[in-house]
Amino acid sequence: MTRKFLLLFFSFILIGAASFAADPLPSDGDDGYKLWLKYEPVADASVKAEYLRFAGFINNASIGEIAQSASRELQTGLKSLLGKNVSVTNLLGSKSGGIVFRLEPDTDLKDEGYRIQLSGGNIVVSSKSESGILYGTFALLRHMQMQCPVKGLNIASSPKVRYRMLNHWDNPDGTIERGYAGASLWKWYELPERVDPRYQDYARANASLGINGTVLNNVNASARFMSQEYIVKVAAIADVMRKYGIKTYLSVYFAAPKTLGGLSTSDPLDPQVRAWWKEKVAQIYKEIPDFGGFLVKANSEGEPGPQDYGRTHADGANMLAEAFKPYDGIVVWRAFVYKADLNADRFKAAYEEFVPLDGKFDPRVIVQVKNGPIDFQPREPFSPLFGNMPKTPLGMEFQLTQEYLGFATHAVYEAPIFKECLDSDTYVNGQGSTVAKVVDGSLHGYSSTLMVGVANTGNSRNWTGHPLAQANWYAFGRLSWDHQLSSEDIAREWTELTLTRNQKAREHIVGLMMRSREIYVDYNTPLGLSRPWMGVHFAPEPWQNRGSRPDWTAVYYHRADSAGFGFDRTASGSNALTQYRPEVQQQWSNPDKTPLPYLLWFHHVGWDKKLSTGRTLWEELCTRFYTGVDSVSWMQQQWDLAKGSLDPQIYTDVAQRLKVQHREAIWWRDAWVLYLQTFAKKPVPAGFEPPKQTLEEVKKSVDIYLMR
Amino acid sequence: MTRKFLLLFFSFILIGAASFAADPLPSDGDDGYKLWLKYEPVADASVKAEYLRFAGFINNASIGEIAQSASRELQTGLKSLLGKNVSVTNLLGSKSGGIVFRLEPDTDLKDEGYRIQLSGGNIVVSSKSESGILYGTFALLRHMQMQCPVKGLNIASSPKVRYRMLNHWDNPDGTIERGYAGASLWKWYELPERVDPRYQDYARANASLGINGTVLNNVNASARFMSQEYIVKVAAIADVMRKYGIKTYLSVYFAAPKTLGGLSTSDPLDPQVRAWWKEKVAQIYKEIPDFGGFLVKANSEGEPGPQDYGRTHADGANMLAEAFKPYDGIVVWRAFVYKADLNADRFKAAYEEFVPLDGKFDPRVIVQVKNGPIDFQPREPFSPLFGNMPKTPLGMEFQLTQEYLGFATHAVYEAPIFKECLDSDTYVNGQGSTVAKVVDGSLHGYSSTLMVGVANTGNSRNWTGHPLAQANWYAFGRLSWDHQLSSEDIAREWTELTLTRNQKAREHIVGLMMRSREIYVDYNTPLGLSRPWMGVHFAPEPWQNRGSRPDWTAVYYHRADSAGFGFDRTASGSNALTQYRPEVQQQWSNPDKTPLPYLLWFHHVGWDKKLSTGRTLWEELCTRFYTGVDSVSWMQQQWDLAKGSLDPQIYTDVAQRLKVQHREAIWWRDAWVLYLQTFAKKPVPAGFEPPKQTLEEVKKSVDIYLMR
Repeated sequence: MTRKFLLLFFSFILIGAASFAADPLPSDGDDGYKLWLKYEPVADASVKAEYLRFAGFINNASIGEIAQSASRELQTGLKSLLGKNVSVTNLLGSKSGGIVFRLEPDTDLKDEGYRIQLSGGNIVVSSKSESGILYGTFALLRHMQMQCPVKGLNIASSPKVRYRMLNHWDNPDGTIERGYAGASLWKWYELPERVDPRYQDYARANASLGINGTVLNNVNASARFMSQEYIVKVAAIADVMRKYGIKTYLSVYFAAPKTLGGLSTSDPLDPQVRAWWKEKVAQIYKEIPDFGGFLVKANSEGEPGPQDYGRTHADGANMLAEAFKPYDGIVVWRAFVYKADLNADRFKAAYEEFVPLDGKFDPRVIVQVKNGPIDFQPREPFSPLFGNMPKTPLGMEFQLTQEYLGFATHAVYEAPIFKECLDSDTYVNGQGSTVAKVVDGSLHGYSSTLMVGVANTGNSRNWTGHPLAQANWYAFGRLSWDHQLSSEDIAREWTELTLTRNQKAREHIVGLMMRSREIYVDYNTPLGLSRPWMGVHFAPEPWQNRGSRPDWTAVYYHRADSAGFGFDRTASGSNALTQYRPEVQQQWSNPDKTPLPYLLWFHHVGWDKKLSTGRTLWEELCTRFYTGVDSVSWMQQQWDLAKGSLDPQIYTDVAQRLKVQHREAIWWRDAWVLYLQTFAKKPVPAGFEPPKQTLEEVKKSVDIYLMR
Repeated sequence: MTRKFLLLFFSFILIGAASFAADPLPSDGDDGYKLWLKYEPVADASVKAEYLRFAGFINNASIGEIAQSASRELQTGLKSLLGKNVSVTNLLGSKSGGIVFRLEPDTDLKDEGYRIQLSGGNIVVSSKSESGILYGTFALLRHMQMQCPVKGLNIASSPKVRYRMLNHWDNPDGTIERGYAGASLWKWYELPERVDPRYQDYARANASLGINGTVLNNVNASARFMSQEYIVKVAAIADVMRKYGIKTYLSVYFAAPKTLGGLSTSDPLDPQVRAWWKEKVAQIYKEIPDFGGFLVKANSEGEPGPQDYGRTHADGANMLAEAFKPYDGIVVWRAFVYKADLNADRFKAAYEEFVPLDGKFDPRVIVQVKNGPIDFQPREPFSPLFGNMPKTPLGMEFQLTQEYLGFATHAVYEAPIFKECLDSDTYVNGQGSTVAKVVDGSLHGYSSTLMVGVANTGNSRNWTGHPLAQANWYAFGRLSWDHQLSSEDIAREWTELTLTRNQKAREHIVGLMMRSREIYVDYNTPLGLSRPWMGVHFAPEPWQNRGSRPDWTAVYYHRADSAGFGFDRTASGSNALTQYRPEVQQQWSNPDKTPLPYLLWFHHVGWDKKLSTGRTLWEELCTRFYTGVDSVSWMQQQWDLAKGSLDPQIYTDVAQRLKVQHREAIWWRDAWVLYLQTFAKKPVPAGFEPPKQTLEEVKKSVDIYLMR
């Protein structure tokens, strides 16, 4: 820029006039649409030459549509990476110098697993299934995007979990509950005739990660999805998904037999109701032969369910499972239940309701459990359901959309949240009984395993609003395939595929990502705080003490008072801790020994209590709030250090969002500090500048976001 | 495809294997993002050579940011049209062979008008203002896009209306009331720090049409836009708009002094309230020095307003106008008011309330009137307010978003709707007193003139959902500049810029567009029907007889009974006709002479009444419903005839939407025919196949869209 300017300056002297070239429009850069499938041309000549040696042809003997997708993806990728149009042949003969798809019935791989190796002068992608070929193809393309050598190529990988799925909380009117990336991808008014080309790009992105299922609609479900009108719309989407090995699922409204079917009841034990669902499922399979199944939120937050008729969750789930008997579908039943009871501890609700039902579910049912006992808070202990329902497949529900993580303006890399839960030890079968082993079925020996991400996608051009939030989709997909991958390796991989191949820049970004969750926790909910949110889960509102339900207040959760702060879940409190094995209880039962990140989850701690850091609770809280804000500045610096290696549009996008994050981090800090001061009655510790605004001013600025 | 296949077939024989090239992904085509600013390379060599003779330089002596935008746009356009980087110089000297911007204080053009002519071997774009230079630049680029000759170039054009404006009904949560093209363009949670590059592309598109104002938020306004938090967000958008000569406006919540300001009243005559608004306006101008003004929906559909305090609309508007006194802003006050009174005729309400206020408004106020007396129906007579408030500037409010025109799946070109109204003769000052002359100020001699389009934009990649709906944005913009342009010329121009330069294909498309509105009316609301809509204004529901207000029912509007059909607005009925001049009354007062398109707007007509077509009312209605459906098939054929000249992605998109339209046209036809049969008790006339479904079945299929 400076050089250009100087040049122009001299031109000015020479010709007596300034002369300017066209500025690029701000929208001319990378808009993020291509996600991690950018396939930038391979710049290194020797690497390119090596790849070209295997780009003579693609051999695909299968006419199945998933295998066809694999060859199309490989052609697209090679064209872009190597600048070469590679043809597909269906006969191999003795040819070498190509990439060969090989369906192998006898292999030690799981159904969807794949192997990539050199054989006969070709790169061979083999699997039992076409899906495995497709996953192997994407793995090979990833390998090439990262310019890894072909020499010695020998990758074998099988998924650890069978159902790897996104849940969309998308409503039929195009809005998304807890969506921060625009409107829904699914355009129900246009379907079934109009099929948005973007559906296919969605399928490609998911398949590239190994995701094999998608629930299209909100768990707060509309009954209209059970109508023939909507079933054919869903079928049009399913036709696209199928080509990429993705099954389509629907959330169902439990009272649909009444509201849509016109029956007098939706009682799961009523024969007419059972017949209605059977017919409904048959109707769906007529249009969608590979339909995945149902997801159900029942008797939860006002949704109807079997308890409306004095029946159990098992009664409800099993009735639906029965309807799936002739087919290959499953019923995913959510364990997210709690009562509007101020005296109960919401933490305990799911365990209390579901553990007694262990063993009572049809084998087609998977119970879907959120990672923590409350609700996707920035940090939660693992849900005590994991390990405590050995006869029931438990699926893991993670939330990708940043409902409690700053919407689309805060950078929070979520893989560490997922890993923290998966690596937690339940001790149910002794040490090493991790949550991951519950979820992948290895601990209790079931094969119907599930990992779910509540999608963070919308129709924003870059899919996820925040460019860095693409990494959360990516990380979820990769972990649902292999939960043993490390957060850091995934971050590094995603950054390389998506943002930059410059290693130094990448390390700045990976560093930023890896610390981002702790930074967010620091200014937002440190030391085990939870739910200081107002209605829309956006702004700080720890003072909120009136809700439409008695338990829907902030004060119910954090319990700040003049004595101290935090929710006592030990024997002197709700005793929720007893839902864990003794080894786990031991970690968290003694306030002196509870790791600080979990402290206020389990203890009501006095303001002057000295913590392991040497600071009092009050001092520690303030330290976290202030450090959190400062750390956002550090994130900004890290991002700026990578600037030269980033696409300008992406650089600017993230840099601007980090500014928002910094402003809002101050908002959170000030809200907490000022509010907690009303109980703690203490000054801000030395070394930190007290908030410039008053509590009333902060409250007023929050109220604006509640205004009609 | 066939040829390719044959070739492949022979390859197969030769090498013994089939070999396939990569299929393009469906999203590889034209996604419509660039609208009518595609600037496809000029293919004709002689035309290109002619243009290149003037592409030696751009001379821009102005450093103002609007002029800078003009040179940037010209550079972008020339680069794309001619493949040439053209530099900008600020000194002209005696150079020739370029394009010259010339600010000319003394010219017969209006402030924003422009002239493009040849002079001194250059193309000279001249204007009094930088905005005029920008509009002239876009006009020149349009000229070149259509490959018109430079020889004899002499275009002069001035806008006929001063304020040419979009109204966005966008909510702060990102939803759009009556929006069918995705989420809002405005990302309030990201602002002010993050400025979406798309804002600039939005500004470019509008400026290219001469639109010079935008109201960012819904007329059902949130008070939060009056907070400092939101004012700085608005300012960040205004900074982008300003560069393209577009002023930013806000809709205001009349009760904001109470809800946001904490006052005890919002009474417009209360000194504290007046002071609050003054301070508020000053606060806004501090952040946005060229702020445009306020738009107000007051005492309408439940919104607060001056009548809550026994004051008039003039009292409310004038209070706000007073606050704008030190600035250049205006107050736009909507006349869209009516009472929840089953015995009143909503048709008459705006006239009754506003005509007595004529002469009482501050000169800074413009009263904004919807084209018709009810609410953006597919066809309405012109609002009787036009011409009847000679002392008050009346702005025209058109609706671009297809609230009652089939959302984003029905192709309806709206220019004929706009023109029909503008060309209507009010006769207030004798023959030729058209609505257009009221709106452009020439009839009553005022200069504060306004034309508004309720935006059809959203964050869909192609901006408007339906690709053909871009033409409605385009047509509105062009007509707001010059209402004398013909619908057909605009359609031809838009089609050439946006879809295809093939003349034959273009004529098929223009033909389709020009008939599309009448076709929609035929299957939807023929002969002057109105409001057979259910809650979301999507599906047929002429039977709807219960609403949250007594007048919010379909039967209130269409008045079907065993005797006949239609709303009697003559002396024997509501007598709304008397709101028009006698010459207009005469056109519509006699059912035998009322043109058929307006018949049921003014008369309750017997089922057996013979119409001018020789058919009875019942027969005519059926004929329209059935012809309407058949005509959608004709539209499909026209579109298919253009296929070879269209981008495949755009072709497919529209073709698929036309399929939806055809299915839904049948839905409308069947709903009407079956419902009206319950009154008319007559068979479907010979030659038409009776509906295959029963009325109950149609109702059920509609109910699905009402279901939670």
